[in-house]
Amino acid sequence: MKLIVAVVQDKDSNRLSDALVEHNHQATKLASTGGFLKAGNTTFMIGTEDENVDDVLKIINDNCKSREQLVAPISPMGGNADSYVPYPVEVQVGGATVFVLPVDQFEKF
Amino acid sequence: MKLIVAVVQDKDSNRLSDALVEHNHQATKLASTGGFLKAGNTTFMIGTEDENVDDVLKIINDNCKSREQLVAPISPMGGNADSYVPYPVEVQVGGATVFVLPVDQFEKF
Amino acid sequence: MKLIVAVVQDKDSNRLSDALVEHNHQATKLASTGGFLKAGNTTFMIGTEDENVDDVLKIINDNCKSREQLVAPISPMGGNADSYVPYPVEVQVGGATVFVLPVDQFEKF
Ligand code: NI
Ligand code: NI
Ligand code: NI
Repeated sequence: MKLIVAVVQDKDSNRLSDALVEHNHQATKLASTGGFLKAGNTTFMIGTEDENVDDVLKIINDNCKSREQLVAPISPMGGNADSYVPYPVEVQVGGATVFVLPVDQFEKF
Repeated sequence: MKLIVAVVQDKDSNRLSDALVEHNHQATKLASTGGFLKAGNTTFMIGTEDENVDDVLKIINDNCKSREQLVAPISPMGGNADSYVPYPVEVQVGGATVFVLPVDQFEKF
Repeated sequence: MKLIVAVVQDKDSNRLSDALVEHNHQATKLASTGGFLKAGNTTFMIGTEDENVDDVLKIINDNCKSREQLVAPISPMGGNADSYVPYPVEVQVGGATVFVLPVDQFEKF
């Protein structure tokens, strides 16, 4: 038995939840902030048998992998037109920090 | 030393807190959602010496064990009377998912 | 690799965050309540290499150590003047409860 603790960006949180449910993995979400990832984030705790750890890691990677995203420029609405970038820019989004913890004992009451 | 991580239903949370205090076990509560248990839930972290793990598990079981509860029917208030069940129904409430984690080092500052 | 779980008082939380960032340690904060420490508290999760555990523990100790603080008396504003203490009193503030957990596997996606 392992307890997988995964910190992911809020924007990937619902998609990860859905994917874990689809694959029949149980998870608990904790509200978390700052740190490992700059934006708002969510901490998942997923209890799983040793033989399913790789499957859970793959699901996390598939749904939360750090990637580049094109962001459309926002027009400068009365702001400083000098700083206006008139084309989409690439920003890094997503990413996950994952700890696989050993479990001495597991109980369901 | 062990760190016991227990996910319990919100409705059992206060009772479990009180029971842990009575037995002189220290716990921290984290706000958590979804997953192991369908309804709103709370994650307890309880640090304890190895020899007290069984006592903590018993307290969790005593206060959070999955059980059936009779729920009084709600009258259909202008709703579809066809789906109205005019007698109490049994629903499953409570339950706890518990991980006992090994601790390499414990410090109190 | 270790996962350090530290429960500290809310009032020390921002200072600890800043100190961890300064020393280049990544942390995630979880909202937590009650238990190990009486007042509102915050749970930090800090992933770190084995050789940096002592450095992280020192930072936690430096910023959250339990200490006495002089609290100015509050004038009894129409309350019971008999219970008014006309000199500052020492109260215990801060403190940290810290668990160092072994990590079987660490991934960054
Ligand atoms: Ni699967
Ligand atoms: Ni007891
Ligand atoms: Ni340092």
